[in-house]
Amino acid sequence: MILFHNDYSEGCHKKILEALVKTNDLQTPGYGEDAFCARAAEKIRKCCGREDVAVHFLVGGTQTNLTVIAAGLRPHQGVLAADSGHINVHETGAIEATGHKVLWLPSVEGKISGEQIREYVKNHRADPSFEHTVQPKMVYISHPTEWGTLYSKAELEALSDACKSCGLYLFLDGARLGYGLMAENTDVTMADLAQLCDAFYIGGTKVGALFGEAVVMSNPTLGEDFRYIMKQRGGMLAKGRLLGVQFDALFTDDLYFTISSHSVRMAAKLRAKFQELGYCFFMSPETNQLFPILPKRVREALGEKYTFIEMDPVGEDSRVCRFCTSWATLEENVEALCADLEKISRV
Amino acid sequence: MILFHNDYSEGCHKKILEALVKTNDLQTPGYGEDAFCARAAEKIRKCCGREDVAVHFLVGGTQTNLTVIAAGLRPHQGVLAADSGHINVHETGAIEATGHKVLWLPSVEGKISGEQIREYVKNHRADPSFEHTVQPKMVYISHPTEWGTLYSKAELEALSDACKSCGLYLFLDGARLGYGLMAENTDVTMADLAQLCDAFYIGGTKVGALFGEAVVMSNPTLGEDFRYIMKQRGGMLAKGRLLGVQFDALFTDDLYFTISSHSVRMAAKLRAKFQELGYCFFMSPETNQLFPILPKRVREALGEKYTFIEMDPVGEDSRVCRFCTSWATLEENVEALCADLEKISRV
Amino acid sequence: MILFHNDYSEGCHKKILEALVKTNDLQTPGYGEDAFCARAAEKIRKCCGREDVAVHFLVGGTQTNLTVIAAGLRPHQGVLAADSGHINVHETGAIEATGHKVLWLPSVEGKISGEQIREYVKNHRADPSFEHTVQPKMVYISHPTEWGTLYSKAELEALSDACKSCGLYLFLDGARLGYGLMAENTDVTMADLAQLCDAFYIGGTKVGALFGEAVVMSNPTLGEDFRYIMKQRGGMLAKGRLLGVQFDALFTDDLYFTISSHSVRMAAKLRAKFQELGYCFFMSPETNQLFPILPKRVREALGEKYTFIEMDPVGEDSRVCRFCTSWATLEENVEALCADLEKISRV
Amino acid sequence: MILFHNDYSEGCHKKILEALVKTNDLQTPGYGEDAFCARAAEKIRKCCGREDVAVHFLVGGTQTNLTVIAAGLRPHQGVLAADSGHINVHETGAIEATGHKVLWLPSVEGKISGEQIREYVKNHRADPSFEHTVQPKMVYISHPTEWGTLYSKAELEALSDACKSCGLYLFLDGARLGYGLMAENTDVTMADLAQLCDAFYIGGTKVGALFGEAVVMSNPTLGEDFRYIMKQRGGMLAKGRLLGVQFDALFTDDLYFTISSHSVRMAAKLRAKFQELGYCFFMSPETNQLFPILPKRVREALGEKYTFIEMDPVGEDSRVCRFCTSWATLEENVEALCADLEKISRV
Repeated sequence: MILFHNDYSEGCHKKILEALVKTNDLQTPGYGEDAFCARAAEKIRKCCGREDVAVHFLVGGTQTNLTVIAAGLRPHQGVLAADSGHINVHETGAIEATGHKVLWLPSVEGKISGEQIREYVKNHRADPSFEHTVQPKMVYISHPTEWGTLYSKAELEALSDACKSCGLYLFLDGARLGYGLMAENTDVTMADLAQLCDAFYIGGTKVGALFGEAVVMSNPTLGEDFRYIMKQRGGMLAKGRLLGVQFDALFTDDLYFTISSHSVRMAAKLRAKFQELGYCFFMSPETNQLFPILPKRVREALGEKYTFIEMDPVGEDSRVCRFCTSWATLEENVEALCADLEKISRV
Repeated sequence: MILFHNDYSEGCHKKILEALVKTNDLQTPGYGEDAFCARAAEKIRKCCGREDVAVHFLVGGTQTNLTVIAAGLRPHQGVLAADSGHINVHETGAIEATGHKVLWLPSVEGKISGEQIREYVKNHRADPSFEHTVQPKMVYISHPTEWGTLYSKAELEALSDACKSCGLYLFLDGARLGYGLMAENTDVTMADLAQLCDAFYIGGTKVGALFGEAVVMSNPTLGEDFRYIMKQRGGMLAKGRLLGVQFDALFTDDLYFTISSHSVRMAAKLRAKFQELGYCFFMSPETNQLFPILPKRVREALGEKYTFIEMDPVGEDSRVCRFCTSWATLEENVEALCADLEKISRV
Repeated sequence: MILFHNDYSEGCHKKILEALVKTNDLQTPGYGEDAFCARAAEKIRKCCGREDVAVHFLVGGTQTNLTVIAAGLRPHQGVLAADSGHINVHETGAIEATGHKVLWLPSVEGKISGEQIREYVKNHRADPSFEHTVQPKMVYISHPTEWGTLYSKAELEALSDACKSCGLYLFLDGARLGYGLMAENTDVTMADLAQLCDAFYIGGTKVGALFGEAVVMSNPTLGEDFRYIMKQRGGMLAKGRLLGVQFDALFTDDLYFTISSHSVRMAAKLRAKFQELGYCFFMSPETNQLFPILPKRVREALGEKYTFIEMDPVGEDSRVCRFCTSWATLEENVEALCADLEKISRV
Repeated sequence: MILFHNDYSEGCHKKILEALVKTNDLQTPGYGEDAFCARAAEKIRKCCGREDVAVHFLVGGTQTNLTVIAAGLRPHQGVLAADSGHINVHETGAIEATGHKVLWLPSVEGKISGEQIREYVKNHRADPSFEHTVQPKMVYISHPTEWGTLYSKAELEALSDACKSCGLYLFLDGARLGYGLMAENTDVTMADLAQLCDAFYIGGTKVGALFGEAVVMSNPTLGEDFRYIMKQRGGMLAKGRLLGVQFDALFTDDLYFTISSHSVRMAAKLRAKFQELGYCFFMSPETNQLFPILPKRVREALGEKYTFIEMDPVGEDSRVCRFCTSWATLEENVEALCADLEKISRV
């Protein structure tokens, strides 16, 4: 079987592996206070175009989300997110387990807008029994979203403006950030995120690393004492240098961006084939995730050789499906999939 | 001003006040281990037709909800509730503050169905990434609902069956229980609730008492060590006998039911007038809460003498409004309101 | 039996009962937004000598403690308290249930010192792995303490100075505050507390009220959005006016102080008898709680007519015992107890 | 500098690194549902001598502790631990952040006893206000302890018996388990732990792996739905196979035990030198951690070439110090340290 159902099926990029092997026997201090973490943080700061941001390394996405969100909220406060947001649906209530409600908003293609934030906050404050409801204090977005879609720079600016004017934090989940930044039609850079967000994270697990996410904290209030909270929530790796080594490699010679580009290119190739064959997409295919709508016969035939996720039904016979490419996707596998798809579809 | 905006504007029924005055100087043990609590519990058990249920007394509704729900859930479990459920919208995230997600379901007239429960649980179990989502373990309903509507006995049986067959607890919030049990067209009794629910509570705060809710625990697993959790959550009153004395009075000579009937009758009188004058109701008017849709002119005119709550707009000019009666509502006030309503409407 | 084992065995003072009866049928807004709460708060502010403090009313002590402490701490922060502190031993882990560790300090007669606070904070900051330990952010003391002892003004000033210089909040649990302020040898006033503490509460439950505690918030940062958190933790009483009416009565014509004086005088009478008869005290008898050390024979003989608490053994035969007086203690009962004690002891 | 201050200064054992390199490009399912995890679990079960235990893999120690403990406790329950227990002092209140109090017991050489458990539970149950205190439900021990000491099999049996007879879970933190099992004078095997504990974990982070801990769940009640809770607390690694691959290697050809032996032997060599030179130990040196008491002059001289931790002062001039060896410790480094120590001491 060739796996297209997610983007974390392989280990890590060979340059990262080499770096891990090369540094394996070195002795370093623990808990992220080593030279590799320092160097990786420095490179990320450069990439952000800001010297004044703090950079912290955590192991995984759910852990990162719950740690950042818990760090920023007082007990009566909640976090606004898209209904489809990862924290709302796929983290087993991790945010609630820290005591906070996820306040969901209806989304369009996985995205929410600055206007929705302003509206929500206005309504909250106008409600005569506002003290009986959760106070919104943070906005969580993902970029790319869970549906593989992207915010434009203007949309992010509108969200950031709304948050600033309402006194909310803006936190961006970049589990697949590289695939967003390298998308064909995006106008968003990492430096933009460092300007517009109070915190965001650069996903490593799905973009070339064995594991690891790098949190960039632009807002020092949100980031105060963050390492305590990392430790408390189990997110401070004893051998923190493993994260430093990996992100150091990822941010050397633009590796993070090069491998992200590859994934996006692979997805584009597959997307073109789906389109050529007349399949519709449930969501605009912008990054490394594609959501074509496929009839049963096609799903069954493809399912003999390839893995992908079957999601909600569309009509009697069809279903939304998810195909992912990644930094590790072999071009020959995409070509094989395209060829098989064509064969199956042209019958 | 005459207050119709809620059902907790006065103190308590005079018989309760007399009981409190009469017993004031007595010395009793603390924390609900006194003879009054024992006697009240005994009367409630009788009213439930079951000797084997545990009865606990707490001060208020939010406290009761969060204590019962926290008692019943393991960390990864959540509670299913109507979107309009009190725990979902009006308790400042009290349930989330105990670590648990409120899993909301769309409701019809404030109610959810056994079928929805079965469907939700079935989908949860069928989801290949079920471990990434919150496990449903309890169902929370309110009776009457936040919209003043009522479950039929058949609907409650269907919910209870669904819960039993899915391994979920059924918990019923009876903040306004008396007004539900005394409604004109209900076929539900307190004994039914003691059979069908794992736990429910009998609201005192809104039904004649100064304060206080009586939890009836039919399921000993859910109720295990409940007093520890009451204490931990701040719900164990030092002078617990105050709750015993009040519920003892409420369950003597059917006081709880008599005063509930009065409230329902007052609401019916007001309802008839609204209907006679051609106003529509946003929700079926079944208990002590009425939700007529009123135009601006009527709202402004009434607002000079009476309080009521203005809720969502309907069309350009109208709004859903909430009027409550209670055990304390004076018939003369209802008559005055009816007369004024007629005068204003007939212009 | 005559009850001396605690100070919450009766209902409330007759003036409070009268006020509750008199106001019972009035209609007021809910949730503490009524004129009685406003008036009581005003009187308390006057008594504090500060117009700029916020006053909130809650039902009970555990609830008050957990709500104030949760309001003030970020996730990685804890509260320093005496080992014997109520939050450390007698609230079923209520503070931990809000996510925070109680950091205990060894106490002398139930008290901790400013010096201990400075030392603890200094050590925390000097610890190379400080991020692996809980950060102290609040100090909790009770006055009188759980052992009925009192801080001097100088001791409170030292605690307050230590907290200010270390950036910690000082929170004082005054469940029995009246008995402390009316003690014979105290130099502490309520105005002092309003100057020295970031928050403190005036106990009603044990000092004349049916129930209720009044939180005085001097520090607006700690008090920000406090009503949301009260609601979330189940501490916002629907008929909040019950608390307003009671505290209004308590702070009219010095009732709170007069009835506290009575209790202290009753304790002094009993103390004198214990001393006259040669019994030792485990803790200095300063307020309404006495901890004499009594041999088995005396305990058994007294136990036939009076309740008191038997605590830790002292030697083979004796035990520390707790006797409480209260605002409600009848002088004739104290005299009877003294007479019986004399009779038993002189055998 | 040569690092002796902890046992996680290097990467991983070369066989593990080889396994990671070799499997890097393979595609596997995520979240621990791959063949490597299955194989590693199978080997661990064999090593435990029980087919009926569940094995789960997590990334780090704090995460493992908080996840297992949260899984086992209801809200009012706490976990008993030694005062020096890792969860009590070095996890930034991670357990409290899940809502539970750590109930500490005085320890002897880092250990607690079955007798202490029985006594604590007996006292809890005999306390008339037991519902006002946290209910003990789990016992947490570490083996080796934080002081590098070991339980004998008889001591573990006594703890296990006490837990069983009191209805408590026994959970053993084996962050350094290998070093304990390979100690010279131990009579405890992994199979014993699988019999005596309800859950224990096999530390990988400090024993040869890059990271990772393997939880062995003998008690199915404690382990029910454990994967949900892992996910919720951020402990379910996307590329779970990294843990499987590492533990598979560790439990192939006794690697885990061989490398542990090496560390223990290195520590013994160093211990012998300390003893030969007349230094005292603060704690019995049994495993890979040594706690010699060293005067200032020696500390300063050694500190120029070696890292170690300086702990509490002993007398005017000396301090308890911590030296760790590990699977990675080079014999030449130990020899150099011994030689330097001798040189410094013989002056």
